[in-house]
Amino acid sequence: MSDRVTMSLAEVHATTTRILLAHGVSTDQARAIADTVTNAERDDCKSHGLFRVPGYVASVKSGKVNPRAVPTMRDLAPGVIQVDGQHGFSPRALEVGRAPLAERARSQGIAALAVVNAHHFAALWPEVEPLAEQGLAALACVDSFSYVAPAGGSKPLYGTNPIAFAWPRQGRPPLVFDQATSVSARGEIQIHLRDGKPIPEGWAIGPDGGPTTDPRAALAGAQLPFGGYKGAALSLMVELLAGALVGDVFSFEASARDNGDGGPPEGGELVIAIDPGRCVAEDKRAGQLAHAEALFEKILEQDGARLPSDRRYAARRRTPTEGIRIPASLYETLEELERAQ
Amino acid sequence: MSDRVTMSLAEVHATTTRILLAHGVSTDQARAIADTVTNAERDDCKSHGLFRVPGYVASVKSGKVNPRAVPTMRDLAPGVIQVDGQHGFSPRALEVGRAPLAERARSQGIAALAVVNAHHFAALWPEVEPLAEQGLAALACVDSFSYVAPAGGSKPLYGTNPIAFAWPRQGRPPLVFDQATSVSARGEIQIHLRDGKPIPEGWAIGPDGGPTTDPRAALAGAQLPFGGYKGAALSLMVELLAGALVGDVFSFEASARDNGDGGPPEGGELVIAIDPGRCVAEDKRAGQLAHAEALFEKILEQDGARLPSDRRYAARRRTPTEGIRIPASLYETLEELERAQ
Repeated sequence: MSDRVTMSLAEVHATTTRILLAHGVSTDQARAIADTVTNAERDDCKSHGLFRVPGYVASVKSGKVNPRAVPTMRDLAPGVIQVDGQHGFSPRALEVGRAPLAERARSQGIAALAVVNAHHFAALWPEVEPLAEQGLAALACVDSFSYVAPAGGSKPLYGTNPIAFAWPRQGRPPLVFDQATSVSARGEIQIHLRDGKPIPEGWAIGPDGGPTTDPRAALAGAQLPFGGYKGAALSLMVELLAGALVGDVFSFEASARDNGDGGPPEGGELVIAIDPGRCVAEDKRAGQLAHAEALFEKILEQDGARLPSDRRYAARRRTPTEGIRIPASLYETLEELERAQ
Repeated sequence: MSDRVTMSLAEVHATTTRILLAHGVSTDQARAIADTVTNAERDDCKSHGLFRVPGYVASVKSGKVNPRAVPTMRDLAPGVIQVDGQHGFSPRALEVGRAPLAERARSQGIAALAVVNAHHFAALWPEVEPLAEQGLAALACVDSFSYVAPAGGSKPLYGTNPIAFAWPRQGRPPLVFDQATSVSARGEIQIHLRDGKPIPEGWAIGPDGGPTTDPRAALAGAQLPFGGYKGAALSLMVELLAGALVGDVFSFEASARDNGDGGPPEGGELVIAIDPGRCVAEDKRAGQLAHAEALFEKILEQDGARLPSDRRYAARRRTPTEGIRIPASLYETLEELERAQ
């Protein structure tokens, strides 16, 4: 008997939607989450795909998240839009803010979307990639729970605090990266734990402050920032931008008020969109994206070099026909979630 | 005989100014550079202090830089200002753009300064710290020469491409970091070469693509991005933001057109300023900076942890009375530069 189950992307979407609707999630919130989960599976980002569905459901069952929240939007400045998630999930809040943010970036040259009171449990590239598909450069960051030690420290304080960036390309999908400021994503450690595998050295320290390769000790101790103090500084920046700047909590505050249901933290997020055409004089606009392509060509000239989003896009070409595979245990969990409400 | 010479900060400023004026640099350009060099020495950032003066002079003598350039400014969008350095040095171009950028950040919530055609040879924190002193959050990046290998590659392509960030604090100097996306700054390797010391492992690879601790081989080979592919992705982002986005060159293009005089590359730069008060609803403004202080306290509670700017600020308290020390050989070089025009 195979320990993997194959699903089509349509099945991923339908299953996710059915499970969420069955647990009282509104149509808009459920569809936005299903889009996000399906896109993660499509791009082979396993730690943000169906793996996350039990957590979404847990946070509804525990009452932490408002599954029928209707995000509200307001203008804070000509270049700043706020979307209040109203204690629902982030995918719908982001969806509501996306078009207004893009419109504002075009009219102002640069604009920011400040998301507050939303539960974020997904990858970060879905925030920036759609903006770049519309010709904008975009930068996003979000904090999470208190997982990562600050520079010189040994106890968790920062979130894994990813930074995502996207750049538009003509006739091709955008150049995108999305990377935790910790060495590894939290979900990667959770997947190692689930699969009974040790984590690589350097990812984390245990509760005693010493290095560990035990995923359980890592989850109980502290993850490490990537690149030492430099990654820690970026993580601190993300705390400030997705926390104090937008008027929402830091990761340590999100941890303190969380109910431990295994679902996403509630907090803020910052997305910045820039219209490249508004950052140069008019006569420079025509060649701007072609200029970037010259850099990408230079990168790919080097043996072994690749562009950050290549792995995801390769998966994206494959999965619509081949489908995706998940562990049988996860498939069973999803079946149970669909039955038990 | 001591191999170090002590100078007061006033002497640093006066010496730098005299040397630059003696080589035909305009008063405005010379003063702006002297401010930048003096502030670097004040904060014990040796690789961006007097150490840089010979390079500034070399780029005037070679004719690469226009030492009497008068930067021009124009509006590209409500949230985007462009300063054209007119082939002069960056410090004056940045000075011209600073107040308009701050004003625009306050009125728009978020704004960008796109600097083009300027020669950057300094640290990056001078771009963001003054903005945070005015209550703004600020982010800056600049590319340089082709020094750093891309992810998976072994030949230089990216610049050392620093990212600087500043956050305002009430009654205290801002929280600031400024870090190369390479493991080390270029100047650090140059200083190791000057002092005849090996560089730490992991900083660079030699021309053969293999690891090296020889600063000369490192300078001839490729520097490495910090944190592997993650630092490389950030370096790529900086290339795009300070290059294609503002309509100026990438680092490899700056290298290709440089005359090898040892002075700074010509290129672009991006500075983003955000008004925290415009990113929250009015009733949230009063507590916003105090909220950030709660995070800083949490960091400092941990044994061994410190804030990114602490080392610079400690030097800043010391040097106004104690002065700064430079190698006698550098002092002699400066004396020669003052005589020989």
